[in-house]
Amino acid sequence: MRGVMHTGTSMADVQTVCFEAAEQVIERCRSVALFSETPAGTTRTFLCQAMHECHAFLRSWMEDAGMKVAVDRVGNLRGLYPGKTTGAPTFVLGSHLDSVPDAGAFDGVLGVAIAISLVQLLEGRRLPYALEIVGFSEEEGVRFGIPFIGSRGWLRQLPADLLQAKDKAGISVAEAIQRFGAGAGEHVLNESSRRIGFLEFHIEQGPVLDNLGLPVALVTAIAGQTRASVTFRGKANHAGTTPMHLRKDAAAGVAEWIGEVEQLAHSVEGLVATVGAVEVLPGASNVIAGEATASLDVRHPDDQVRNMAAQKLLSRAEEIAAARSLTVEHSIRMNQPAVPMDGCLLSTLEKAFAGVGVEPHRMVSGAGHDAIIIAEHMPAAMIFLRSPAGISHHPAETVRAEDVEIALRVGSAFLDQLLAPELR
Amino acid sequence: MRGVMHTGTSMADVQTVCFEAAEQVIERCRSVALFSETPAGTTRTFLCQAMHECHAFLRSWMEDAGMKVAVDRVGNLRGLYPGKTTGAPTFVLGSHLDSVPDAGAFDGVLGVAIAISLVQLLEGRRLPYALEIVGFSEEEGVRFGIPFIGSRGWLRQLPADLLQAKDKAGISVAEAIQRFGAGAGEHVLNESSRRIGFLEFHIEQGPVLDNLGLPVALVTAIAGQTRASVTFRGKANHAGTTPMHLRKDAAAGVAEWIGEVEQLAHSVEGLVATVGAVEVLPGASNVIAGEATASLDVRHPDDQVRNMAAQKLLSRAEEIAAARSLTVEHSIRMNQPAVPMDGCLLSTLEKAFAGVGVEPHRMVSGAGHDAIIIAEHMPAAMIFLRSPAGISHHPAETVRAEDVEIALRVGSAFLDQLLAPELR
Repeated sequence: MRGVMHTGTSMADVQTVCFEAAEQVIERCRSVALFSETPAGTTRTFLCQAMHECHAFLRSWMEDAGMKVAVDRVGNLRGLYPGKTTGAPTFVLGSHLDSVPDAGAFDGVLGVAIAISLVQLLEGRRLPYALEIVGFSEEEGVRFGIPFIGSRGWLRQLPADLLQAKDKAGISVAEAIQRFGAGAGEHVLNESSRRIGFLEFHIEQGPVLDNLGLPVALVTAIAGQTRASVTFRGKANHAGTTPMHLRKDAAAGVAEWIGEVEQLAHSVEGLVATVGAVEVLPGASNVIAGEATASLDVRHPDDQVRNMAAQKLLSRAEEIAAARSLTVEHSIRMNQPAVPMDGCLLSTLEKAFAGVGVEPHRMVSGAGHDAIIIAEHMPAAMIFLRSPAGISHHPAETVRAEDVEIALRVGSAFLDQLLAPELR
Repeated sequence: MRGVMHTGTSMADVQTVCFEAAEQVIERCRSVALFSETPAGTTRTFLCQAMHECHAFLRSWMEDAGMKVAVDRVGNLRGLYPGKTTGAPTFVLGSHLDSVPDAGAFDGVLGVAIAISLVQLLEGRRLPYALEIVGFSEEEGVRFGIPFIGSRGWLRQLPADLLQAKDKAGISVAEAIQRFGAGAGEHVLNESSRRIGFLEFHIEQGPVLDNLGLPVALVTAIAGQTRASVTFRGKANHAGTTPMHLRKDAAAGVAEWIGEVEQLAHSVEGLVATVGAVEVLPGASNVIAGEATASLDVRHPDDQVRNMAAQKLLSRAEEIAAARSLTVEHSIRMNQPAVPMDGCLLSTLEKAFAGVGVEPHRMVSGAGHDAIIIAEHMPAAMIFLRSPAGISHHPAETVRAEDVEIALRVGSAFLDQLLAPELR
C-alpha cells in the first residue's frame, strides 16, 4: 500500500491510493465480522471470546502500520504511533469494536479500520503529534445493559459500582475483565502525553446522506434525548353493550396522542419524536381498553427545543385525557442534554473537506456515540459515512468503497491540517 | 309469599307482593353466588361440582312453587309447571346458571330466579299453557371456549364434534356430562309438548338504562358482530436517526386508524366499534414500529349498517396505509348476523309494560345471549334490567330490588296477556 501525503503526489494518484485503501478497509471489516460469539452472523459483545480474535487480527495490521499495540485494563485495543518529537501531544482516532446482536459488519469497526488505514497511509511519516488509535471494547450496552464502558474506562471515568454490574450469566464487569485478561500489556502505552482531541468515523445509521446523495458529513452535535412513558387510564368495559358516548376508552386516548406526537415532530425542524412501544390492557378484542401505555422518545440538537417539545406533548396528553374523562400519568426515563462537537475541530475538518473537493454537509447525530462521553474531556468530532438505504444494526448494513475513499482523503487532509495553527 | 294475579287484588297489594318477591330473588341470587368452584368469589363454569349445589338449592325452590324438576342430559336444570289442560303448549322462561371467572351474582342467575319467582307468584293457579323454567348449564363459553352449549343441547342441536371438545384439563364435553351424572331424572320432563316461545330476563351488562334512569327495557334485537384483525406494516428503524419525512411508522398508522374507527362509530346511530387489542412490534421505545396489529369489533342491530361500517373501516385502513407508504392486511374473525326478537312477543310484552305503567323502552343487546340460538327454533324475547353503573362480569355487579319488582310485575302481566289471541 502506497502512502498519500508525500509532496509531489498528484490528485489522481491520491485517489487511486485511497480507493485501494478503502477496498482494504471494507474487506477487513468483513473479515472482523466473522469473529462472532454466535456460530452464524455477527454478535460480538464486550469482552467475549471472539473479541480476542478480533484484537489479534487488528493488532497485526496496526503493528504493520508502525504502532505499538496493547489491550488496556477495560479491554480497549489501543495503538500508539509516535509523533515527530518525544513528548508531543496525542490526537486520538477510533471507534468501537463491540456489536449489537446479529449486527452488520461496519457499525464501529469501520471507524477503527479507517483510523488504522489513515496511519498506514502515512507510510511511517511523522506528524507534529502522536496518534492514538482506539478500538473501544464496549459502546452498545448489550452485555451489561450499560453503554460506553470502553470510552469511560479509557478516560478513567468508570464508576466503581459499574464494575459490580452483572450480565445475564451473573458475571460482573470486574470478573469479565479478569477472565478476558485485559490490561496485561498496558505498560507499552504512554499515558502521560496530553490528548488534544478525538475524531471518530462512523456509518450514519440512518437514511439522510443516502437521500441527499452525499458520501460523508460533519457531525455538529449529538442530539439530546428525552424518554418517557405515558399511561392513559379509562374504564375497561363490554365492547358490545357500552354505547360510544359512555366510553372511557384508553386505547382511543393513546391513539389520539400518538397522532399529536407525530404532528408536532413534523412541524418542528430537526425534531424527531417516536412512540415505539404501546401496551393496551386488558387487550381483548371485545373489551374496551381500560389502560394504554405508550413510550415517548424525543430528540433534537437544541435542548430548549427538545424540552419544550416534550413538555408540550405531555401537556397534550393531559388535555386529551381530560377531554375524554381519562386520567394520565407519565414518568421521565431519560433526559440527556445534547452534546455539541468541538468548533475548532469542525472548522479544521471543514477545510479538509474543501481541500478534497467534498461538500462539508453538516448534520446532527440522532444516535448516541462514545463522543458524548469523550467530549466532556477533550475536543471531539465525528464524521458520518453514508449508510446505503439507511440500514443499521442489521446484517444487510453496508458502506460504499467510494465513500470510504472520500473519508480517507478527508481524514488524511485533516491530519495534515492539524498542524500548529489549529492546535490548542 | 302471596300470589299476584287473583281477581280483586289491588295495585298497591300487587306492588307489595312483588317487592317482597324481588327481595327474595336478590337474596337467592346472592346465595347461589356462594356456590363456586373457587374458595373465594364466584366462578361456576359448565358442569363443575358447585353446579350440583346450585341445582339442589334452586330445585327445592322450584318444587315448592309446584314444578316437576330434573337435570337434563346436558346439565340444564329444568322445571315443568303444568297448564290448565293436558297437552297444552309450553312457554319457556329461563336464563343460564354458569358464570365467567370471578363473576357477579346476577348475570344469568337473575333470569332463572325471576322465572321461578313468577311461577311462585301464580300460587298454583293454572294458565292455558304449561311453563317450562330452564337454568341453562352453559352460556359464557368459559370451560370449553364454546358458548351456548346448554341452549343448543336443550334444543337437541348439539353438534356431535362439540361433544369431543376438551377443556384445559383434557376432559371432553361427553366425559364432563358423564362425570356430572347429567340426564338421570330426565324422564319426568314432558318433551312432547309444543314450545310456543321463550322469554329471558337478564341484567343489561351495560350503562344505557342506568344513564336513562329506566328500570327495564324490551330487547328488540341482538346486534350482529363483525370481528377482524388489521395489521399495518412499515419499516422498523432507529428512532434517533430517521427523520420524520423518511419514516414508515406502523404505530402512527394504526393510531390514525383507531381514531377513524372511533369517529365513524360516533357518527352512525346505534353503531359501536372498538379497538380493544393493539400490538406494536418490535415494541422498543427507541425503534420506529415496523408492524402494528389492531383488533376491530363492530356491532349494530342492522346487518347492512354493520357490514357497510366494517367495509368502510377496512377501506380507510387501506387509504391510511397508502398515504403513509405502509402496507395493510386484514382477516375477518367473525361475521355474525343480528338476531331480531319476535314481533308478536314484543307487542305482548309492550302491553304488559303499559299494563303496569312502565315505559316500554326498546333497546338492542350488544352482547350475545342464548336467545341467538333459541330464536332460530321458536319466538324469543328478552327483557333487560338496569345494571347500576353498567358493571358486568365483575363481583361489584348488582341489581336494584325496585327494578326486579317492576320486572316481576311486567312478567306476571305478560303471563296473563299470553292468552289465546296472542298465542301462535
